[in-house]
Order: sequence, then structure tokens, then C-alpha cells
Amino acid sequence: MPEISNRGKQMPESPIRKLAPFAEMAKKKGHKVYHLNIGQPDIKSPEAAIKAIKNIDLTIIEYGPSAGYESYRKKLAQFYTNQDVKVSFEDIMITTGGSEALLFALGSIMDQGDEIIIPEPFYANYSAFSAESGATVVPVNSVFESGFTLPPIEEFEKLITPKTKAILICNPSNPTGYLYSESEILQLGRLAKQYDLFLIADEVYREFIYDEDIHYSVMNLEGLEQNVIMIDSVSKRYSMCGARIGCMVTKNKEVISAAMKFAQARLCPPTIEQIACEAAIDTPQSYFDEVITEYKERRDTLISELNKIEGVIVTKPKAAFYCIAQLPVDNTDDFAQWLLESYDLNGETVMVAPAAGFYSTPGMGLNQVRIAYVLKKEDLISAVRILKEAIPVYNSTRLKKLIEVE
Amino acid sequence: MPEISNRGKQMPESPIRKLAPFAEMAKKKGHKVYHLNIGQPDIKSPEAAIKAIKNIDLTIIEYGPSAGYESYRKKLAQFYTNQDVKVSFEDIMITTGGSEALLFALGSIMDQGDEIIIPEPFYANYSAFSAESGATVVPVNSVFESGFTLPPIEEFEKLITPKTKAILICNPSNPTGYLYSESEILQLGRLAKQYDLFLIADEVYREFIYDEDIHYSVMNLEGLEQNVIMIDSVSKRYSMCGARIGCMVTKNKEVISAAMKFAQARLCPPTIEQIACEAAIDTPQSYFDEVITEYKERRDTLISELNKIEGVIVTKPKAAFYCIAQLPVDNTDDFAQWLLESYDLNGETVMVAPAAGFYSTPGMGLNQVRIAYVLKKEDLISAVRILKEAIPVYNSTRLKKLIEVE
Repeated sequence: MPEISNRGKQMPESPIRKLAPFAEMAKKKGHKVYHLNIGQPDIKSPEAAIKAIKNIDLTIIEYGPSAGYESYRKKLAQFYTNQDVKVSFEDIMITTGGSEALLFALGSIMDQGDEIIIPEPFYANYSAFSAESGATVVPVNSVFESGFTLPPIEEFEKLITPKTKAILICNPSNPTGYLYSESEILQLGRLAKQYDLFLIADEVYREFIYDEDIHYSVMNLEGLEQNVIMIDSVSKRYSMCGARIGCMVTKNKEVISAAMKFAQARLCPPTIEQIACEAAIDTPQSYFDEVITEYKERRDTLISELNKIEGVIVTKPKAAFYCIAQLPVDNTDDFAQWLLESYDLNGETVMVAPAAGFYSTPGMGLNQVRIAYVLKKEDLISAVRILKEAIPVYNSTRLKKLIEVE
Repeated sequence: MPEISNRGKQMPESPIRKLAPFAEMAKKKGHKVYHLNIGQPDIKSPEAAIKAIKNIDLTIIEYGPSAGYESYRKKLAQFYTNQDVKVSFEDIMITTGGSEALLFALGSIMDQGDEIIIPEPFYANYSAFSAESGATVVPVNSVFESGFTLPPIEEFEKLITPKTKAILICNPSNPTGYLYSESEILQLGRLAKQYDLFLIADEVYREFIYDEDIHYSVMNLEGLEQNVIMIDSVSKRYSMCGARIGCMVTKNKEVISAAMKFAQARLCPPTIEQIACEAAIDTPQSYFDEVITEYKERRDTLISELNKIEGVIVTKPKAAFYCIAQLPVDNTDDFAQWLLESYDLNGETVMVAPAAGFYSTPGMGLNQVRIAYVLKKEDLISAVRILKEAIPVYNSTRLKKLIEVE
């Protein structure tokens, strides 16, 4: 039997999706599972998008251009310009999800063994995309206690080697919900300029900001036009995760032409979904206002409920729809599985994402979980109540087990 | 300014898409361009698929499962089983186009520097996907004069090194239109078994067979269950190139689990298009009968028209919707550009795909073009008439230029 590749063996498994079979089992037992683990919002997609799909006027679902429909790229350029991110459609390549945008960016700038510095905890799939691209992730720790602010810039600088090609941030951050300040982005920009590095920002949560803070895009870094690459997607903006439409934005023409070769090889992004996304651009501001109000209330509810649990520590996130909470348990990997496998409160249980999967440094985040507040407030309240009841049960079960073993 | 990657520099450009700007220019001059260069059929997508899109019953376009919807995978397994390719849904992973299926397959089995043997001429993007995966393409020449039959198996054997991991074929073949016989597939199977290689078959044209020949899938190779990987797509079957829905099929569980990690990283294939493809499975046989009849007539028309041109040599293709024709010109790259840039017959011209782009060996195929017969018969007749008139004009222009230079 022929052997699979080392790359195939070394590709990291999704730390969240590996719990999925246990959630399935819980559901088969008839238990209701509150999914605090996923980034799939329950918010409706914009009517304009759904309508565009229903009214589709095609008899052949044809290939589109490799870079995406020009009409869509032009509307998107206007959309960003309205948000004070001044780009032309030629700076934009439509991709099959933000995932592909990041794969194209990494493929275009990283060779086998090149290093990319990423503040951890970070979106787990960054490890997978790096592995696919042959790049090595060099994590820099952002600290739970400080609410995951940008690590001191000297910490980044210490990690730069001749193999360092890029810094990657997620802003606002999945999994921490942290929003980098303008001054933090400026610091990163100066460092990237000084060492001639690419600075990639995954800004897919750019709309989801709940207080007075303002999102500062890397695209606005003056003098860094050749260094910055923005990753974006409609998944969260329009609650269209299944559309698989994203984009890569950069003013660096060499990056665009390299990425164009990756894009041509895979022919084009999906046609129907692209038409839906073009229609979605006209979504009125009221849609976003409602969504933001809803998420803000969910965030406030979640944080206030979590704070009622003894031993739980959590910082109120500024943006996106995640937070990292520290729980009074030793190992959240084990706890998360136990919740699905062995626990229920009146037939209900909770699925959380163990945070270790978001750290690249082994041993980090073992007592942390990522919680997505993509459920209705009443569901969030029920879910947190289950967590509250479950923690002491889990700890006493584990204690009993330890005693038995000894 | 930071440098892009060597991989980005070395990624081959699409040999066809690089002519696109010249076609644009011709159109801007008001010329009609007959596209003999592309694989985008003008056949309508099945009504069931379009209807499923129009009747979509979703308010949120959500993430689907990473391996694709189980309901779709099950229907697809039944679809293949009806074609005597006996697979279970667990052997099938839905991908974003056949392109992604091949990327997942290569990523799962090839490491940097590993070698893959491919009979040339081959689908140009195989080079791109290999470059993306760090794999080295080792071409084995299939001969124009013999109608592109399988090269003698000893030619493959000679090329096997300790780095050889796989053989890749396209069956039926884009760009040659050749259909491998059962005996040829059996030979490849024995070789793969003997040297413990993967045997990948891109079978996306499996339905398009025009005479009495029968398609023999690699999935039916007995004892090769752990070696074979089939690549498929709905692009051609249902004339849904823009849907970007394909699949990877294999009974090798290690390959499936490695590919699953690639699949999880990119989350899922597009939701709407997948629903359309599931509906398309019920497309009645009459749809295919009509399509095949139409293509058969187009093929016969094209070949008989081409044979009327002095100096053109072409073998009647058995399958798919391409043929490779040898033209009485020195360099079809130059000729194809000239057709768009400097020639028209009553305001009309033709775009062909220079065949050199389908060879990995430099200097091969310089006087060949790939012609796709995806246009109506009357358009094929007009297009070939233009070719016929253009060739002597081109040759005398080139001769004049040569004399001027001397």
C-alpha cells in the first residue's frame, strides 16, 4: 500500500471539528447541545442576497473570471472606499472564502521553511494553511491577563530571522475578540517596514465592533502599500459562511500576479454565490445596525453570566463574536469531551472549543475555552447555566478518578 | 519591498488565459471571436439544478460539512454504483471543483520534490497543482501520430525513481480526446501495484464518449483499491463549470483522512451549488442522450471541416470535447496571437489554444493546437473556414518578415 505524504500526516486536525463525533453521540442520546464552539451565526443572510439567488437568470452556470466578476470587484472597491479603505478593483481578487485568500497569499510569499510570526492564540486553521504552504509558524504570546493586547513589539523583533517573511494578525481577533488599536497597528507597520516583511491582516470581522472603538485597517498604513495584504470574506459580514466567497486585497502588484496564477489554476470562485454577494453589497446600514445591537447584547449577556461562575475569568471582548474564558478546570480538552460524552442538565449540554487548539506553543491555554456568542440571549443564558452546574461535577468526578487511580 | 516566493515566481501561467487580453482587444476592435480555445460548453445546465437554486429554502447560507453534505455524497455513491463503479459515500469527499480534489489528492500523497508521472500532452493546470504541492512533473510522451494512445508501459517504468509517488492520467483526456482502453488501464494498474504507486485518474469527462467505446474507471481495478484515486466534477457532466463542485473518490482511508484535514481547514464547499448538484443527480438520461448526440455531431463536423484544410492533420477523438490538430505553421503560440491581433475574415476571427502549453517537455507541440468543440455546428464551420483562410496569409506574412530581417 503506497504511503501518504508527510505533509498529509503533519497537517493539524481541526481542534474543534475533532469533537464533532462526541456532539453527534450526545444528540443521538436525545440531548440538546448548545453550540458555543462554532462561528456559524444564527443571523439571517441579507434579503438581497437570497433574492438574487432565487431570481437567478442563468441557463448555464458558467465559469467566471479567475479574479472574480469585475462588476463585483468594482462594487467591493467602492464598499471599502466608503469605509475609508481606498482601493481599486485591481487591488482585489475574489477567492473561494477567506480561506483561499490566505492560501493564495501564503503561496505567493512563502517558500518551504519560511517563517511567519503570529500572535497566539490564533485561528487554528492558520496552522493548517501554513502547513499546506510549507511555512513554519512562529508564535508570539499575547497574554490572557492583559486581555490579549498586542505583545510588546520587541517580542516580535526577537523572533525575526533571515527566514521570516511575514507577520499575520487577525483583527478583530478570532478567538480572543480583541481589536487592535491604531497605535498597535502602526507599531506592526513600522516593524514590517524596518525588516521588509509582509504584514497580513485577516479582517473578516471588521464590521463587528461593539463600543466606541474604531477599526484601523492595515490597508491604511502609509508607506506600507507594498507590504500589506488584507484578507476578507462575506461569511460573517452577511452571515453567508456557506457562500465561500472572500477576497485578497493588496496594492502589491507582484503579489497580485503571483496569486493570479494560483487563481487561474483553480479556474474561478463559485458563480451563483458571487452573484448573491454582489447583490448583498446593497444591504442597508439598518441590517448591520440590528446585527451589531444583537451581538452587543449577546456579548454583554454572555460576559455577565460567565462572571457569575466562581473561578471563571473572562475579559469583555471588544469585537468579533468570541471570547476566551479561563475555567476552573485542569484540562479543557478533557472537559469539553466530558460535557458531550458524560454530562447533561435536564437533557441539555454544551459544546465549547478548548483553547489549546488556538495556541501553537504546547501546554498553553489548557484551562481556557473559546466561546462564540452566536446564539440567542436566552440560549446563552441556558448554556452558561449548564457550564456553571457542570464544572463542580466534572471536578469531583476527576478527583474521584484520581483517588481511584492512586 | 518584500520579495514574493519562488513558488509564486515559478507557478506556471495558464497558457490559454494569457491569450485572453488579445481576445479582449480583438473584441474591442469590433471583431467577433469564435472561442475554440475553451472548455466552457454552451449546453444548458439541467433544469433540475437551476430549479433547485431558484427554489432555495434557506434564510441563512450556512457552513456545510467539510466533506460535503452526506445526502449528496450518498446520492453520488448511488450514481457511481449505477455506472458500475461501486463506492460508498464514505469513499467520496465533495470538493470545490475537480481542481480542489486534485490539490487535496496531491497534498495528501506528495511531498516537496516527489515525482508524478503524467502522459503529455496533459491538462495544463496539472503543472500548476504540482507546483503548488511542491511535486515534480515527469512527463512521458504520448505520440500525436498514434492518436495519443497510452505510451508503452516500459516508457513509464524507465521513469520510475525512488521519488516517484504517483501516475496521473486524464481519462477521457483533455486535451487529446483520447479514451484509454481497459487493457491500457490494466497495464497502468499492474505497474502501480508493482512499484507501490498511487494511480490518479481525472475522469471528469467520463460521460462524453461518442462511439462504441466503453469507459473503464480506475476504481474498477481489482486489488488496486489502496492505490487508486478518482477525480471527478460536475463542471462538464451538467455544464455547470461555475458551480465549482467536484469530488475525490478513493477507498484508501489514509488518503481520505489526510484529505479531510485539508478539507476542514477550508471549512466546506459552496452550499447553494451543492444543493443544485444534489438536485442535478436526478437529471434524466434523455438529457445526456441529447448532449452526447449534439457533441458527436459537432465532433464529426469539426473533424471533417479540419480535414478539408491542406496540411492539417487530426485524429478523430473518441471522447471528451477536444482534439489536438497539427497545423501547417511553425509556431502556434505566435499564430494564435496573430489570429487575434492582426487577422480577421469579414470582421471575424478565431481563438485557439496553442498545444505547447499542454506539454511539459520544451519544444513539443509547437505546430499543434487544441480545439474544443463546444460551439454549435454552424459556428464550428465558420471558425474552421477562418482558420483555413488565415493559415496561408499568416505563413506569407511570416515569410515576408523573415525576408525583411535577412
